[in-house]
Amino acid sequence: MVAVLKNGVTEKQMENLCTWFESQGLTVHICEGKFQTIIGLIGDTSKVDIELLEGLDIVESVKRISDPFKSANRKFHPDDTIVEVGNVKIGGGNFAMIAGPCSIETPDQIMGIAKAVKEAGAVMLRGGAFKPRTSPYDFQGLKGDGIELLEHAKAATGMPIVTEIMNANHLPMFENVDVIQVGARNMQNFELLKELGKIRKPILLKRGLANTLKELLMSAEYIMAGGNENIILCERGIRTFETYTRNTLDLSAVPMLHELTHLPVVVDPSHATGISRLVKPMAMAAAACGADGIMIEVHNNPSQALCDGAQSLTPEQFKDVAENVMKIREVVQ
Amino acid sequence: MVAVLKNGVTEKQMENLCTWFESQGLTVHICEGKFQTIIGLIGDTSKVDIELLEGLDIVESVKRISDPFKSANRKFHPDDTIVEVGNVKIGGGNFAMIAGPCSIETPDQIMGIAKAVKEAGAVMLRGGAFKPRTSPYDFQGLKGDGIELLEHAKAATGMPIVTEIMNANHLPMFENVDVIQVGARNMQNFELLKELGKIRKPILLKRGLANTLKELLMSAEYIMAGGNENIILCERGIRTFETYTRNTLDLSAVPMLHELTHLPVVVDPSHATGISRLVKPMAMAAAACGADGIMIEVHNNPSQALCDGAQSLTPEQFKDVAENVMKIREVVQ
Amino acid sequence: MVAVLKNGVTEKQMENLCTWFESQGLTVHICEGKFQTIIGLIGDTSKVDIELLEGLDIVESVKRISDPFKSANRKFHPDDTIVEVGNVKIGGGNFAMIAGPCSIETPDQIMGIAKAVKEAGAVMLRGGAFKPRTSPYDFQGLKGDGIELLEHAKAATGMPIVTEIMNANHLPMFENVDVIQVGARNMQNFELLKELGKIRKPILLKRGLANTLKELLMSAEYIMAGGNENIILCERGIRTFETYTRNTLDLSAVPMLHELTHLPVVVDPSHATGISRLVKPMAMAAAACGADGIMIEVHNNPSQALCDGAQSLTPEQFKDVAENVMKIREVVQ
Amino acid sequence: MVAVLKNGVTEKQMENLCTWFESQGLTVHICEGKFQTIIGLIGDTSKVDIELLEGLDIVESVKRISDPFKSANRKFHPDDTIVEVGNVKIGGGNFAMIAGPCSIETPDQIMGIAKAVKEAGAVMLRGGAFKPRTSPYDFQGLKGDGIELLEHAKAATGMPIVTEIMNANHLPMFENVDVIQVGARNMQNFELLKELGKIRKPILLKRGLANTLKELLMSAEYIMAGGNENIILCERGIRTFETYTRNTLDLSAVPMLHELTHLPVVVDPSHATGISRLVKPMAMAAAACGADGIMIEVHNNPSQALCDGAQSLTPEQFKDVAENVMKIREVVQ
Repeated sequence: MVAVLKNGVTEKQMENLCTWFESQGLTVHICEGKFQTIIGLIGDTSKVDIELLEGLDIVESVKRISDPFKSANRKFHPDDTIVEVGNVKIGGGNFAMIAGPCSIETPDQIMGIAKAVKEAGAVMLRGGAFKPRTSPYDFQGLKGDGIELLEHAKAATGMPIVTEIMNANHLPMFENVDVIQVGARNMQNFELLKELGKIRKPILLKRGLANTLKELLMSAEYIMAGGNENIILCERGIRTFETYTRNTLDLSAVPMLHELTHLPVVVDPSHATGISRLVKPMAMAAAACGADGIMIEVHNNPSQALCDGAQSLTPEQFKDVAENVMKIREVVQ
Repeated sequence: MVAVLKNGVTEKQMENLCTWFESQGLTVHICEGKFQTIIGLIGDTSKVDIELLEGLDIVESVKRISDPFKSANRKFHPDDTIVEVGNVKIGGGNFAMIAGPCSIETPDQIMGIAKAVKEAGAVMLRGGAFKPRTSPYDFQGLKGDGIELLEHAKAATGMPIVTEIMNANHLPMFENVDVIQVGARNMQNFELLKELGKIRKPILLKRGLANTLKELLMSAEYIMAGGNENIILCERGIRTFETYTRNTLDLSAVPMLHELTHLPVVVDPSHATGISRLVKPMAMAAAACGADGIMIEVHNNPSQALCDGAQSLTPEQFKDVAENVMKIREVVQ
Repeated sequence: MVAVLKNGVTEKQMENLCTWFESQGLTVHICEGKFQTIIGLIGDTSKVDIELLEGLDIVESVKRISDPFKSANRKFHPDDTIVEVGNVKIGGGNFAMIAGPCSIETPDQIMGIAKAVKEAGAVMLRGGAFKPRTSPYDFQGLKGDGIELLEHAKAATGMPIVTEIMNANHLPMFENVDVIQVGARNMQNFELLKELGKIRKPILLKRGLANTLKELLMSAEYIMAGGNENIILCERGIRTFETYTRNTLDLSAVPMLHELTHLPVVVDPSHATGISRLVKPMAMAAAACGADGIMIEVHNNPSQALCDGAQSLTPEQFKDVAENVMKIREVVQ
Repeated sequence: MVAVLKNGVTEKQMENLCTWFESQGLTVHICEGKFQTIIGLIGDTSKVDIELLEGLDIVESVKRISDPFKSANRKFHPDDTIVEVGNVKIGGGNFAMIAGPCSIETPDQIMGIAKAVKEAGAVMLRGGAFKPRTSPYDFQGLKGDGIELLEHAKAATGMPIVTEIMNANHLPMFENVDVIQVGARNMQNFELLKELGKIRKPILLKRGLANTLKELLMSAEYIMAGGNENIILCERGIRTFETYTRNTLDLSAVPMLHELTHLPVVVDPSHATGISRLVKPMAMAAAACGADGIMIEVHNNPSQALCDGAQSLTPEQFKDVAENVMKIREVVQ
C-alpha cells in the first residue's frame, strides 16, 4: 500500500502517522521528494480501511498495491480448488455442463427436461424456483413447490441440482439442494452471503450486473470468511451501452479470475446474451478460454416458457452445443 | 405495445396469436406490410410478460410503448406525492435537508453531530447502523446499538431519523425509525422490498449503482404493490468509466423522474462523488434542477470517521452548503 | 417504423402527418386506441430522420423497426463477403492470422518480426507507423519512414501489410499498403471514412471504444456509400467499469455481427485486454465463436517495445497461440 | 510514480533499472519489503511512457501519482484562464450564454434565431455548418455556405460565432469564425488537434462520449503543446446504460475540472439530454455547480428543424432559461 502525502506535512504529523501504521504491524518506508512525499507500507494491509486513510488531513491519495481479498486469493492458495457436488467435480481440470429451465413450471416439464439434458451431456440440473423479476407483476416462480419438483427430477436422474436463493429465511427449503445459487442482483446482499458462509454446501456466486471482478472476489470472501470455501464463481454478462445483446459477456473474466483466484469459474451464456442463437458460439468460446463449466437454459418448448423463453435452447439444440463444447475441451486440455 | 412478426407467418398462426392477445383483454390492430407485419396492442399491457412474447416462434421483436409501472406512474397519479415524516414534508414543493454521519460511532459523536446539523439547517437526521461494506473485514456498523444511539439523538433534537436496513429480519429494531433506507446494493433485493411493502413507514429507496430509472421505478412498484405508497426516491450516482469521481451523479434523473412519477426525489451528493470538496457544488446543482431534498454526510471529525471520511463535511461546511442550497431554492420555487 | 402520437391529436393534424408520410413513399397504418394512437409505417424508412420525427409536436416517440444500414445489411446481401488481400482471403469460411508489432521501430525489428510471425503461421503483417497516443508527449510513430520499412518487410516475406491511417491527407503514402486500418478513435471520423469510400483498397474498421454495433455498421455504411465494399470489421474491446483488463472484449459481437451483416469480422485480443497473458485464451475464444481472423501484437523484445509492450507476445508465444487457434478452427468449421 | 517489482528481482536487475530511471532525471527511492519491493520515482515523470514500464519483465505494476498533463494543469498555472472572444470573456468569473440552432438551414432561419437569442440574453451564436451524423443518409450540413450565413448573422448582431470543424483541410473556411468547436466524436482525432494547436483562435473542445476527464485534458494538452492556449472545455454528456436520456450529463465534471485545470468549462445540456424539457433544469444545475458558460440549441421552429429538433428550445423558452440561469449565477458568484 502506498500513501501519497500532501505538501506541507510537518515532521510531527509524519511521525504520528508512521507510529500509527507501525502499531498496525506494518513496516513503513518513506520516499521524500521535492514535490511529494510517498509512504510505502509493507505487511498485511488487507485489513487497512483505505477510505479512512484517504480521509486523513495530510494524505492526498492512497493506492492499494496488494489485493484486498485473502481466502480467495491464488497468491496464498496456489492450487485450484475443486468443488465436489455429489459425484460431479468442478475446477482443477474438471469440467461440468449444467442445464435446465429458467423456471420450474410443471412436474412434466422439469422431469422431461431433466432426462433430456442428462441424455444430451449435462451432469447437473438447474431450475429456478424463486425468480428475481424486475416487475412485481411478472411470474415469481413456484417457490417451495418448485424445489420439490426439482428434487423429484434429481431422484429420477441422479443429477445434482442447483437453484437460486433470494432470502436466507428460505434455507430450510434448500436442504436437498446440492448447489445454492446467489443471483447477480444479490451478489452484494451481504446479509445473505454471511448466512451462506455458515453452511458447507457449495455456492454458485454470480457476478453482479455492474460489479468488478474485485467486488465479485470480495463477495466470495464474505462467504469464505464464514468458513464455507466451496464456491463456484459465475460470469453471466455485465451491463454496458450495447443494446443488441441483453448484457455483454465478459469472457476475459475467465482467464483473469483464474489468475487472481483458485476458485472454479463457470459461464452462463444464456443470461449474458438473452438470445438463444448466440448460446452455441458463446458456450464454445467460454470453453476455449478455459471455463470450468457452462450453465445453459434448456426448455422443452421455449416459445411457451413462463420466463426467458427467448434465450432457451431445445434439448436437441443443447445436445449440439454440448458436443461442440466437448470438442473444444479436447483442444484446451 | 407493438409486436413485429417474422416473415412467413401463416394466417392460422396470426389468428391464434390475436385470439390469445384478446383473451388477455387487449385490442389488436394489424398493420400488414410487404416486408413486415406489425401488431399494435391497445389496453393494459403492464402485465404482459415481454420476454415470453419475444420467445414466440413467429415474433421478431416486441416494443413496449407504455410504461411497465402503474402505481408509481404520474400518468395515472398526476399530483405530487407528499411524504410526511413527523412534522417534515418531502415533495410537492416541500424541500428537506437531511444530514448526519455515514456511520453511528459513539454516543457523543451522533449526539454532537445531530445538534450541529439541526443548528445548521437540517430537518432530518441520517446515520448508518447497518453498513453494507464491500469487504467483510471493514467496519460493519454498530447495528442495534447504533439505532438506539440514533433514537437518543432524535429524542434530544426532535428530528426524525433515517437509517438503512439490510435484512427484513431486523425490522423489529426499526420500530422507532422514521424513514427506512434501502441502499443501492439492495435496490433489487425483491424479498426485502416485498416486506417493506407490508408496513406503512416511509421508505427512502436509493437507485442501484447500475440501474436504470425504469428499474428504480419498478422497485418502487414492488413496495407500492404491497400497499406502502410512502416512497422517497434517491439518486446517488451511477457506475461509469470515469474514475476521478467515485460514481457519476446523474442529475438529469431528477427532472426525468419528476416527469415519470409523482414520488419525491432526493439527491445524495456525498456518496455520488466520494469527495467532500464536490459536495457543495453538486448539492447546489441538485437543488437547481428541482430535487425535493438533499442528503449529506456530516461528521464532526471527518479525518477520524470510521467510514467514508473522505466525503464527509464538517458541521461548519454543512452550514455553508445549507445556506447556499436555500438561496438556490428561492430561485427555483 | 412505428410512431406513437400524443393524446389530443386532432383529425386534421393526423391527416397532415399521414399525407406527409405518404409523400415519402411510405404506407401508413393507424391503430387508434383509447389511450394512445400508434402509426405503423411500412416501406423504405432507412432515410427517414428519426430525430426530426420525434421533434414534431404531436409525436410522443418513434421506434425504428428495421435497421438503418442497407449496404452492410445481411438481409439484402445474404452471402458472406470475402475480402481478398493479395493471395489472402478473409470471410466466407476463410480465416486469417494477422500479426506484427504495435509500432514499427527499426529496420531490424520489423524485418525480424515479419519473418518470425510468417514462420509461426501469420498470413498478414501488421505494424503501426502513425500511432494515435493519448498523450502528445508519447511516441507518435515513424510515420512515412515506418510505412517504408513495412514495405521492405512485405517484399521480403510476401505477406500483405496492414497499417493505420489517421489523416486522409496521408493517403498517398499508403499506396503500397494492402489493408488500411481505421482505429477505434477514428471510427466516427466521418470525413476520413468518406475519403476511404472513394478508394477500393480493403479497409479494416475497428469498433470505437464506446460504440454500439449499430454505429459500427453505420460507419461501414459511410465507406460503402462511397462505393468501397471491401470492409473488414474488427472487435477490439469496449470501455466498461472493469479495471483489471484495459477494455472488455465483447466476443458476442462476433456472432451478432455475423447475423446482422455479410462483412467479415476479426478480433484483436491484444488491445482488448492489454495483458499478454490473456491473449492466448481470448484468441482461442474468438476463433471458437466464429471470428474470421485474429490480429495479435508480436514483438521480438516486448520489454523494450516503444509502445504497448505489456500486451505483446514474443514470436514463440505467438506460434503457440497460432497452433492452438488452428486446432479450434478445426472444431468450428 | 510508483513501480511495484515482481518477486525474485536480482540486485543486478534492480541496479540496472535504477540507473535507467536516474538517466531520465528521476530520483529513485527503494522500499524493500518481505513480499514486495516498491520503487518511488520523484521528478518530472510526465514524459515517462507508463505502458513501456509495465512491459518490463521485472515490473508487476506501475501507478502514476502525478498527472500526465502539464500545460492544462492547475498545479502549475493556479490562475483561471480567461478566454477572450471578441468582447466576450469566458472563465475567471466571466460567464457566457451561447445559443443557436443545431444546423444552419436557411438565411432567414439563422438570422431570425440570431436576433432572437441575442434579445433573450445570448452573447455568442452557435450553429452547425458541418454536421457529424451517425448515418451517411442524414443531412450533413450546408458546409461552406452555412458558415457564410453564420457570418452574415454575426455581422447583423455583433455576436461572435462558434461552429464545428470536422477536417483540418477546411480551416481556410473558418477564417471569420471566432471559436472553432471540436465535437465529441473528434475529441481524440489527434491529427485535427495538432493542426488546431498551430493557430491562435479559441477552441471549444467537447468531451468525447466515453472519454474520461483525464483524456479530455490530454486532448487539450495536444492543442496547447502546439502553442494554442485558448481552450474552452465542454461537458456534453457521457454514454451510460441509462436510456431515458440520450446521454448522462456528468455535472460533477464541472467542479472536478475546475480543480484539475485552469481552463474554462461550459456545459451543453441540449445534446446531453436530447430532450428539450430537460434543458432548463439542467442549465440551471450547470450554473449552480459553477459552469463558466452554457451552450443551448435554439430553433425558431423546433418541429421543423432538420436535425435534433427534439432537443431544441424556442427563442421564448430560451429567454426563460437565460433569465433563470442568471438568477442562479447571482447566488453562485
